[in-house]
Amino acid sequence: MSKNLTSRAEDYSKWYNELVVKADLAENSAVRGCMVIKPYGYAIWEKMQAELDRMFKETGHQNAYFPLFVPKSLFEAEEKNAEGFAKECAVVTHYRLQNDPDNEGKLRVDPEAKLEEELIVRPTSEAIIWNTYRGWIQSYRDLPILINQWANVVRWEMRTRLFLRTAEFLWQEGHTAHATKAEALVEAEQMNNVYAEFAENFMAIPVIQGVKTESERFAGAVETYCIEALMQDGKALQAGTSHFLGQNFAKAFDVKFTNNEGKLDYVWATSWGVSTRLMGALIMTHSDDKGLVLPPNLAPSQVVIVPIYKNDEQFDAITEKAEGIIKDLKDLGVSCKFDKRTTHRPGAKFAQHELQGVPLRIAIGPKDIENNTIELARRDTLTKEIVQMGGLAHTIKDLLEVIQDELYNKALNYRDEHITKVDDFETFKKVLENKTGFISAHWDGTSESEQKIKELTKATIRCIPLDNELEEGVCVYSGEPSTQRVLFAKAY
Amino acid sequence: MSKNLTSRAEDYSKWYNELVVKADLAENSAVRGCMVIKPYGYAIWEKMQAELDRMFKETGHQNAYFPLFVPKSLFEAEEKNAEGFAKECAVVTHYRLQNDPDNEGKLRVDPEAKLEEELIVRPTSEAIIWNTYRGWIQSYRDLPILINQWANVVRWEMRTRLFLRTAEFLWQEGHTAHATKAEALVEAEQMNNVYAEFAENFMAIPVIQGVKTESERFAGAVETYCIEALMQDGKALQAGTSHFLGQNFAKAFDVKFTNNEGKLDYVWATSWGVSTRLMGALIMTHSDDKGLVLPPNLAPSQVVIVPIYKNDEQFDAITEKAEGIIKDLKDLGVSCKFDKRTTHRPGAKFAQHELQGVPLRIAIGPKDIENNTIELARRDTLTKEIVQMGGLAHTIKDLLEVIQDELYNKALNYRDEHITKVDDFETFKKVLENKTGFISAHWDGTSESEQKIKELTKATIRCIPLDNELEEGVCVYSGEPSTQRVLFAKAY
Repeated sequence: MSKNLTSRAEDYSKWYNELVVKADLAENSAVRGCMVIKPYGYAIWEKMQAELDRMFKETGHQNAYFPLFVPKSLFEAEEKNAEGFAKECAVVTHYRLQNDPDNEGKLRVDPEAKLEEELIVRPTSEAIIWNTYRGWIQSYRDLPILINQWANVVRWEMRTRLFLRTAEFLWQEGHTAHATKAEALVEAEQMNNVYAEFAENFMAIPVIQGVKTESERFAGAVETYCIEALMQDGKALQAGTSHFLGQNFAKAFDVKFTNNEGKLDYVWATSWGVSTRLMGALIMTHSDDKGLVLPPNLAPSQVVIVPIYKNDEQFDAITEKAEGIIKDLKDLGVSCKFDKRTTHRPGAKFAQHELQGVPLRIAIGPKDIENNTIELARRDTLTKEIVQMGGLAHTIKDLLEVIQDELYNKALNYRDEHITKVDDFETFKKVLENKTGFISAHWDGTSESEQKIKELTKATIRCIPLDNELEEGVCVYSGEPSTQRVLFAKAY
Repeated sequence: MSKNLTSRAEDYSKWYNELVVKADLAENSAVRGCMVIKPYGYAIWEKMQAELDRMFKETGHQNAYFPLFVPKSLFEAEEKNAEGFAKECAVVTHYRLQNDPDNEGKLRVDPEAKLEEELIVRPTSEAIIWNTYRGWIQSYRDLPILINQWANVVRWEMRTRLFLRTAEFLWQEGHTAHATKAEALVEAEQMNNVYAEFAENFMAIPVIQGVKTESERFAGAVETYCIEALMQDGKALQAGTSHFLGQNFAKAFDVKFTNNEGKLDYVWATSWGVSTRLMGALIMTHSDDKGLVLPPNLAPSQVVIVPIYKNDEQFDAITEKAEGIIKDLKDLGVSCKFDKRTTHRPGAKFAQHELQGVPLRIAIGPKDIENNTIELARRDTLTKEIVQMGGLAHTIKDLLEVIQDELYNKALNYRDEHITKVDDFETFKKVLENKTGFISAHWDGTSESEQKIKELTKATIRCIPLDNELEEGVCVYSGEPSTQRVLFAKAY
């Protein structure tokens, strides 16, 4: 199945596309910009979902489900939000097909079945949800509302890439309603923290927490918190966002409540989301020229056993041993697959599991039966060693933790080495072209400078880090006074 | 929150609608025919999903995700399937909105952004999936493909009811590909069995397995297996279907494979699905005039504890006891919530938990602290008793199993009492109007008689039971010879 991938050095973008397809993660579909998520890719997404869902519930959230469609009149109610998404909306205008009188066996849209009001396929659900919340909220006793939704959304992007930017994608969107501004701000910050913890501890992706500048904010938000990661090619990737929406949606949808002093006030809101884009971040943080490298926490199978045998007797002995290992690992909570397919040779199996990023591979041959050993190979380092059977399951469990940590630390070192403090615009451009990565530079706080820098270099302000120290300086572009450095980068 | 529901005897349909809304399961949305599934309703759906997903994986299936949209040219490829769904398709025709020049602050569809080919919002995914499978299948070594998808689908129904019939609903759809007809048939039967097991063991809903007549078959199927349940009002409900699709979709999408003799053949297919409609079946099988009755297997909280106290000291003592109970129950795998809200009185809490169908309610008051007891109330029987604390968790665990069984048996008795053998058309009509339920009657096997019976009585053939005994007779409508009885009923 696996011819070699294009190397990352040769063409990073091509390497990525090939990896996604060859490792059976996803592929393009017959629908422009929409992807098919294949079973192996979906199994990784399910692992992410399960962990995020657990974290959301632990922080008091419940799941619910709201309609796919948003009537146009609701969609346009919050003007900034509507303006932000209007250019990429799939619109349902009809509700019936009929036989095409000019084309036997073909269908056409029934012109009689035109909707009175067009329906927008949700690009995000604030509008439909806040319209619903109006009916749920009368008093402070009805607050907070802490809801999350797992759903598909559609944004008609012109240039799409598997996982990173697709017309339809899967995501979760949290939508919360609060009695006070302070509580909503705490919620928005809390969920950004949840995303950071998830990225770092589960995906082994170091992230920088920050807030967006006005021009990079979510349409309709007062403040957008984000987690920003750095990919291997030196480009940044926004991995999750959490928005403090102020009272914008409450005002647009007239959602008022009686506060504990008996006065009417508009409700405060947050929304927050991560999507299948995380699959792209995962791939571009850890993988190598041989294919996917998966952190053990996200691997559908953490270990795979490949038997090497010449006859049935050998196969039976290996099978017995493999089944023992699988049982011991299961008892320790480690997932392990026995790849006993007869349609593939061991070499082809090795290549496939490498391509698909299984963290540990065990090979068992006749000699291992004799010597009470196995061969254990690490996907991340591509090293292998002969290991005695005694205590194997514990060895493996510990090793998986080591791999998880080492992947994180490797990515962290790379990221930290790629944050460059820059104080003049010539250096700014040079670093961006050569070293790449994040540039920490002073900015005068104006959209004009931000825009100019973007035009000249394609770099955007990824975020103003939350833990930023105030520091006097001058804007790297305009020379105007500045009070802090912000992080610039080219980004996905 | 809970005024009394309309009683079932008074108006079953009204009772159902009120229950769904008042028990916080779902509500209508601003989008015609689309529902909002509220957190409590969604939590029950999540329980169903988790169990079904486990059963699908245990039978070798993997999850994947295919696009929401189906290009019209693919949609119309399998003609029967297209014809069956054409009249209820939401159609995307445009991909952009713009400012409405005649209406400041409003948006309109951008006439320049018309799609070259319309996109159908999937009413079911056979077309897009079989178009994808063509790229995945070359040889018998690529088979079987055993895939399931959790997704939303849209069918533009004219008359909608919460959960039972909505324009958008959530479901799972399995789509499998096989090298032989026999294997595909086994798969279709297996998945119908999985649905039957799930309905009976998990939802406590007895079902009859059967096959559909030609006119009731899924559009594009060769054989449709189904599980049919009987609701409390004597109407049947199709709770799940599993289709043997023959080679229809393989032929429509040109999906061929080289079999193990080296010859090219079309691939054999199945598809199978259950949806949020199951929520309707659940409600209408077990619930009563006081609200929802949940089988313990599906209850988001199996037990709720309500404290009854007059001062902080009493509350603290009750809390300590409650926390002990919760811990003991958790160790046995029983979920329990402590309802310590100060915004509601005990009576209001009792009413709410009754309305929402929590299987067991524990009340703890000052006397219980003195006497080392609690009050334990069953939702299904509305009985309550004072129980000693010793061994309480085990008592509860056992009782939950008893409740699960008794709910099933009660529904089974009702169902069995409502299968009536009928041999003449006058009796047929009378039973349908008065006793209601399933009618087991001879049918001559023609669509004409089936259609006439439907016109005259609104009863349809729900299924030809799988375990049917052959028996000579004459058709209850036409008097023509018949070899077996089939099950008729009015249905949801």
